[in-house]
Amino acid sequence: MAQKTVLIVYAHQSVGSFNEAACDVAVKELEKQGYRVIVSDLYAMNFKASTTQDDIIGDLKKPELFQYGEETMHAWQEERLSGDIVIEQQKVKEAELIIFQFPLYWFSVPAIMKGWMDRVLTQGFAFSLKKMYNNGIFKDKKAMLSFTTGATQTMFRPDGINGDINVTLWPLQNGTLHFCGFQVFAPQIFWAPAHCPPAVRTAMLDGWRARLQGLLEEKPLTFAPCELFDLSFEGGFMLSAKVKKKQESQPYGLTTGHHLGKPLPPDNQISAEASGVKN
Amino acid sequence: MAQKTVLIVYAHQSVGSFNEAACDVAVKELEKQGYRVIVSDLYAMNFKASTTQDDIIGDLKKPELFQYGEETMHAWQEERLSGDIVIEQQKVKEAELIIFQFPLYWFSVPAIMKGWMDRVLTQGFAFSLKKMYNNGIFKDKKAMLSFTTGATQTMFRPDGINGDINVTLWPLQNGTLHFCGFQVFAPQIFWAPAHCPPAVRTAMLDGWRARLQGLLEEKPLTFAPCELFDLSFEGGFMLSAKVKKKQESQPYGLTTGHHLGKPLPPDNQISAEASGVKN
Repeated sequence: MAQKTVLIVYAHQSVGSFNEAACDVAVKELEKQGYRVIVSDLYAMNFKASTTQDDIIGDLKKPELFQYGEETMHAWQEERLSGDIVIEQQKVKEAELIIFQFPLYWFSVPAIMKGWMDRVLTQGFAFSLKKMYNNGIFKDKKAMLSFTTGATQTMFRPDGINGDINVTLWPLQNGTLHFCGFQVFAPQIFWAPAHCPPAVRTAMLDGWRARLQGLLEEKPLTFAPCELFDLSFEGGFMLSAKVKKKQESQPYGLTTGHHLGKPLPPDNQISAEASGVKN
Repeated sequence: MAQKTVLIVYAHQSVGSFNEAACDVAVKELEKQGYRVIVSDLYAMNFKASTTQDDIIGDLKKPELFQYGEETMHAWQEERLSGDIVIEQQKVKEAELIIFQFPLYWFSVPAIMKGWMDRVLTQGFAFSLKKMYNNGIFKDKKAMLSFTTGATQTMFRPDGINGDINVTLWPLQNGTLHFCGFQVFAPQIFWAPAHCPPAVRTAMLDGWRARLQGLLEEKPLTFAPCELFDLSFEGGFMLSAKVKKKQESQPYGLTTGHHLGKPLPPDNQISAEASGVKN
């Protein structure tokens, strides 16, 4: 059997940063477990972030109106995507787990990492209109976010100044990772390490190291499976009437995004043990 | 009195695209109203998206550990930010309103636009730990998102396959724009224009043109004002006990992110008329 592989997509500029330390902990711990670990160090690679015509080799299908999504889908089918994208896609194919390690910038990933998502997760390769969410192309793979914040944990509570971190993580975890099928592990959040004394930073890394020991056996976060929806244009890609009826008696919505006008299931995007739809 | 200015930060690769048409409509309509309109055409400018050391001219304060946020804050204070950032910051200073025009990529802005946010909204220039949200540096300015989707509108309902669009918009509208103080106008959402016949696309643009006629007089979206929170490290930057008590009897949370374990105020991030905290 081939050696199992983990890909770490890593976005920090600096040697000696806390993010680098978190990345190193993951590399060492996973290698100790026998995994092959590949790190895509985006700044070191000077990874191109912008989605441009250069991502396609050869002629465009529709040169009179360049549409990035369409053109890259065709280019993927015909093996005409630019080399740097092909290399990353090969890593994704080989990986059983992808860890995104980054500092939170503006409630999201840094632009260079957004560029990785925009450019590597090509239609056809990473999703199709038939294959998404729990039926997605990468449904047998795992992915997770591991990030540092500038803000403290209480600032990201539902009653904290920044609002609920579960809401903030939805576009990344549901809209990107789970959209492509990934089973998403609970995020590893390092709260405000820059404001913490060295002993606390060390303890944070020790906690991460300990978690990594059982990471691959963790239960993923709960999302709403496609089977609950009427996935047709006539049905509007909405929850089926039967499911909707059944959910009425539930105290919470299904997920952070599928709240159905009810209270959000607590910590749906940060804890696998949280309440939510039963699959 | 100086001519009033609108800045459009525009991210689409193609002449002839629907996004370009939406941008053109805004330029023409706002110029007709007497505004000076500046367009930052990010792809045409080949705008650098990644946050690197090149954004700082001269010596680093702490070369042994490069910290982008800290270093750019110092560089801003000492007028040592790279020229392309300075030019964009000057446009922001002059603008009364900023419109972000883009296609939604992975439930968010394209990487090149995220790069604009990461690089232009420098600490000191765009926010400080004392000046944020409704007390933010740009509190006398307006900003808004105007974007196209691949998905239909029903897919982004709370019971649609992608979940509530209000949740998806929170990191951009609260976490980025309002964080810097901007009053945020309701987003202009062009639902799936690529799947619409020409007449519908034309009608969408006509609707945008009509909205632009009264845009500057619109009421902005509702966010939770800082005054409701105890903004101290001891207080955890959380809702004050008095406000929390008072909110208990309310049927909805304050905002999409500040839901307080209650149902989200409907359409808090897409409609200014929606329910929510009364300021």
